[in-house]
Amino acid sequence: MNKKVAVILSGCGVYDGAEIHESVITLLRLDQRGARVQCFAPNIAQHHVINHTNGEVMPESRNVLVESARIARGEIKDVRELVAADFDALIVPGGFGAAKNLSDFATSGANCIVQPDVLAAARGFAETGKPVGLICIAPHLAAKIYGEGVSCTIGNDAGTAAALAEMGAQHVDCVVSEIVVDEKRKLVTTPAYMLAQSIADAASGINKLVDRVLELAH
Amino acid sequence: MNKKVAVILSGCGVYDGAEIHESVITLLRLDQRGARVQCFAPNIAQHHVINHTNGEVMPESRNVLVESARIARGEIKDVRELVAADFDALIVPGGFGAAKNLSDFATSGANCIVQPDVLAAARGFAETGKPVGLICIAPHLAAKIYGEGVSCTIGNDAGTAAALAEMGAQHVDCVVSEIVVDEKRKLVTTPAYMLAQSIADAASGINKLVDRVLELAH
Repeated sequence: MNKKVAVILSGCGVYDGAEIHESVITLLRLDQRGARVQCFAPNIAQHHVINHTNGEVMPESRNVLVESARIARGEIKDVRELVAADFDALIVPGGFGAAKNLSDFATSGANCIVQPDVLAAARGFAETGKPVGLICIAPHLAAKIYGEGVSCTIGNDAGTAAALAEMGAQHVDCVVSEIVVDEKRKLVTTPAYMLAQSIADAASGINKLVDRVLELAH
Repeated sequence: MNKKVAVILSGCGVYDGAEIHESVITLLRLDQRGARVQCFAPNIAQHHVINHTNGEVMPESRNVLVESARIARGEIKDVRELVAADFDALIVPGGFGAAKNLSDFATSGANCIVQPDVLAAARGFAETGKPVGLICIAPHLAAKIYGEGVSCTIGNDAGTAAALAEMGAQHVDCVVSEIVVDEKRKLVTTPAYMLAQSIADAASGINKLVDRVLELAH
């Protein structure tokens, strides 16, 4: 019985979209473990476009769904079509896109607003007891999805952890190779590039997250 | 002794740039095997920009180096700076970018012209006996780099294989999980998404290619 997993992307590139390494490692591990995957993204304009060679804002506009399609090789759907009933689990990779396009956490911190279609989709998994994996900075969504008291990690950055606590989450420090599991809520989180010094570093925690999410799905 | 490997990217996205899965799998395996990696790309305009949700050309212009930087998380250099003497090996992932931006093989076939800086860099590895790995459609560069008689694979597509033969290469059919090695020239090739039905499929051959390239490097 192949498990069906939804992956929500947030663009294509660490500084303005989904972190590409985290996204591909997630897709690779899911496939290697026999899961069937469908990628989704919100059909909205990116917060901005960053030149990844120098960090400067570029004077152009790109669409989150269209750019996310690069990671998904075109096999992607509007997140409005994502219904938890069709899947066994959900995973959201990180990258600044998670905090700029899926919400405005990058600019508003604890006062952030989550993109409504993304929030509705993710809450669908929470409400039906299906596991969710949030990677890197994506765990800033945890309190918005699950409410107060949810346990998660973004690694050990004090400022970010404080923002998560202000939102109602219980932050747990975690090394890059490990995961934090809120067993009651079936939420799995890992720091990935919040801490990773290399792509293999990031993969060590992400592989554990994928494996644990699949174990929790039944 | 960590081996130093140069990776030449050709944009960011299968239809107009470097194939993202192939590129990330290459970077991951190299890091897991302890290699030190530096990414490069030509600082030129992309052939075109494709909307990856529908395959249509978008009315905009993007730069190959700037877009490749998304895959490299900003750690990338102009391929003009790539000198074989500084590295132990070279790997070029596939994607249409390899046949649209590194050369014009996608439109000119056997009559293609290779981007001069890319060709000069790759020939530097060939001339100094350092191993080169070409993935997916990138082996169309083999005859341009090594001259007539070089053995390589792009899988089993008859038309593409015929074009390679017309350029002087000796094409060898190969399944997705395997590699073709021209031992004399230290050239390693694998079909990846020329044949892969899934990302794990692509990884099976790419991991072997990376391992063999590192074995050949000394």
